[in-house]
Amino acid sequence: MTDLKRSWLESANAPDADFPLNNLPYGVFSVEDGDLRCGVALGDRIIDATGLEAAGILRADLEADVLDAPFWNDFMELGPKAWSAYRAALTAMLEEGANEAAQDAITIYSVPMGEATLHLPIRVAEYTDFYAGRHHASNVGTMFRGPENALPPNWLHMPIGYNGRASSVVVSGTAIRRPWGQLKSPEHETPIFAPSRRFDIELEMGAIVGVASNGPISVDQAFENIFGYVLLNDWSARDIQAWEYQPLGPFQAKATATTISPWIVTAEALAPFRTATPKRERPLLAHLQDTTPMNHDIALSVILNGETIAETNANELYYSSAQQLAHHTSSGCPMRSGDLLGTGTISGPEKHQRGSLLELTWGGKEPLQTASGLRTFIEDGDTLSLHGAAIGNGYRVGFGPCTGAVHPAAEDPFAT
Amino acid sequence: MTDLKRSWLESANAPDADFPLNNLPYGVFSVEDGDLRCGVALGDRIIDATGLEAAGILRADLEADVLDAPFWNDFMELGPKAWSAYRAALTAMLEEGANEAAQDAITIYSVPMGEATLHLPIRVAEYTDFYAGRHHASNVGTMFRGPENALPPNWLHMPIGYNGRASSVVVSGTAIRRPWGQLKSPEHETPIFAPSRRFDIELEMGAIVGVASNGPISVDQAFENIFGYVLLNDWSARDIQAWEYQPLGPFQAKATATTISPWIVTAEALAPFRTATPKRERPLLAHLQDTTPMNHDIALSVILNGETIAETNANELYYSSAQQLAHHTSSGCPMRSGDLLGTGTISGPEKHQRGSLLELTWGGKEPLQTASGLRTFIEDGDTLSLHGAAIGNGYRVGFGPCTGAVHPAAEDPFAT
Repeated sequence: MTDLKRSWLESANAPDADFPLNNLPYGVFSVEDGDLRCGVALGDRIIDATGLEAAGILRADLEADVLDAPFWNDFMELGPKAWSAYRAALTAMLEEGANEAAQDAITIYSVPMGEATLHLPIRVAEYTDFYAGRHHASNVGTMFRGPENALPPNWLHMPIGYNGRASSVVVSGTAIRRPWGQLKSPEHETPIFAPSRRFDIELEMGAIVGVASNGPISVDQAFENIFGYVLLNDWSARDIQAWEYQPLGPFQAKATATTISPWIVTAEALAPFRTATPKRERPLLAHLQDTTPMNHDIALSVILNGETIAETNANELYYSSAQQLAHHTSSGCPMRSGDLLGTGTISGPEKHQRGSLLELTWGGKEPLQTASGLRTFIEDGDTLSLHGAAIGNGYRVGFGPCTGAVHPAAEDPFAT
Repeated sequence: MTDLKRSWLESANAPDADFPLNNLPYGVFSVEDGDLRCGVALGDRIIDATGLEAAGILRADLEADVLDAPFWNDFMELGPKAWSAYRAALTAMLEEGANEAAQDAITIYSVPMGEATLHLPIRVAEYTDFYAGRHHASNVGTMFRGPENALPPNWLHMPIGYNGRASSVVVSGTAIRRPWGQLKSPEHETPIFAPSRRFDIELEMGAIVGVASNGPISVDQAFENIFGYVLLNDWSARDIQAWEYQPLGPFQAKATATTISPWIVTAEALAPFRTATPKRERPLLAHLQDTTPMNHDIALSVILNGETIAETNANELYYSSAQQLAHHTSSGCPMRSGDLLGTGTISGPEKHQRGSLLELTWGGKEPLQTASGLRTFIEDGDTLSLHGAAIGNGYRVGFGPCTGAVHPAAEDPFAT
């Protein structure tokens, strides 16, 4: 674990700062009515990467303006060497002792974070959601199939997942409207069409694929192809899912929205926090085996209306994002720069470490006493936030919150 | 049903021509080393729509060069009025009696179809695959769960589907490599990683969304938002699927490739062939009910190495593409121009009307005697084609073949 890299920008050196020089996460911002620009978070400021590039002060590519865009996709396509070189050059301009010209340029090409609006950092190519958390899978399995059949037979052999809907991915802060859907309770013969009554969160990490591939890739290659990570809330209508998911998996239950945190924390920034996956309960097939530590030690929490209701860690993931990506390519599936891979809900072994209301309230049977009142699932007006940070020596690599306020369902979606 | 619209281009008037003036499907082509251009099929020629636009002879939009692209997406975003106006203007230039200037322009801005290479007609935004064929669902259900549980309980209440992988969509003619994957037979304790032994086709139609939406839309609106239709072969590794699909649905089993026919047959060209969905076995919820006939009478066939092994019709679909799209939006899922919606396998009630080898050979238990030998699933070297056409009075609206040759699996996908 490394120490704080000090910056001449004092706000970046505070021990509780989410964005010290060690972090340098990538996002997209706008100020007032301005255009969307690529930005880098440092302390309480956003560095205007698009502006630095246009001025010829800091370029990622000598040939093309890869940051003259409202997303980081063109930059990501340059690959790991370019990512690393850009980060090093930016670090040199920001570290304590950087020359005055650099400090002046950054001062000109940056804005106070409080004045900026944040947008999706990437154009999401496609979105996949896995089910790679051991405790979540057992909890859900126990509720639905009993403890003896908690894990599906395939679970310990591959990171199972399903394709989600990229068009539904939104940035933190976007309002979420409670969805309508087909609901059927066991005591009724036929379904009804109504607003979801069991609307939930899922605390996840999301890995962003930077390097495209066309054919099966190894776990090592997959790890190198991942550009960075975000927090991800996979909003889930449990009642829609219960009725629709057999035999083709979740569909409309997961299509309302998926919120991601606005800053991509790069794989490089997380390198000091790499950690092994949990002990294998069954040996994995050769192509899925761990080679080096590829999980990350990232403290995670769920906040309901300002109150922490769950705390866990990304190191609980049974399969790393690299293992998920390798499996994703195993049948030849082409991956593209900008693909987003959700991990699935991350829960710990204890009750207060569960990353969904479904688990925290055991299917709604054990309501949660919160400062906002008793909760089974989400109530209209609730605001849900995910927080995450890797904790270093006297500094933290933070993600920035992944937040959404839930608005009431539309009156009648098919009236207009 | 309308009659043949005669063109001054004689090859378009042949009774067996796939591309008479009534059709005018949209594709993307190139000639020798030239760039990819938008084209329209007529008889034995491809009209260079990109060239006609650049020359100012035929424009879809006065403001922007929407056809100066290797896909029809920008054109699709103009919406149904523009689609219709463009088709009418093009028809006027092509019909018998068109003025000499028009005929000269078309002669200059067209190429013989035999000299062109065809490409994907659209940039696929996202790909969804439904399960909307009644006979297919019962056949598969009977094989896997027995005749009394053939249909999942939700099946008669909604068009169930799953999100597929847009990056895997390829144009007809693209070689298909047999995938590797995790396979587990019931007699083994653990899975192996090996080439699929039960690689299959699925005969489907694909609907292409032209108009984006953001929130639930009605079946009527959904029908209007569909730009056109293609044939679609959802290559499926049955053995990978059997092991992976519980509880999250098909994933790597369907990610190797999905082939579509190269020409988008527009909704307008298919209007004379609209037909009702089959009789409802259970009443549908209000928002999913049929309003007008939205299925199409399209004769479909499966060709194995030149031999027809199955014949069915798109009118067998229990849920129309419009109903699929309406359901897709019901939870608020945003749809985009360029989204592709597969129908799921289309089978008829008779044995020779089944749209997959799984059904034709009843899970491999009743091998099919073909001119190429006995078949259960696909053998390396096999070429599979889907054909489709709506049959009018003395003409046909054809789709062009949807073809793929299956190559042996790679030696060892994780060796490099």
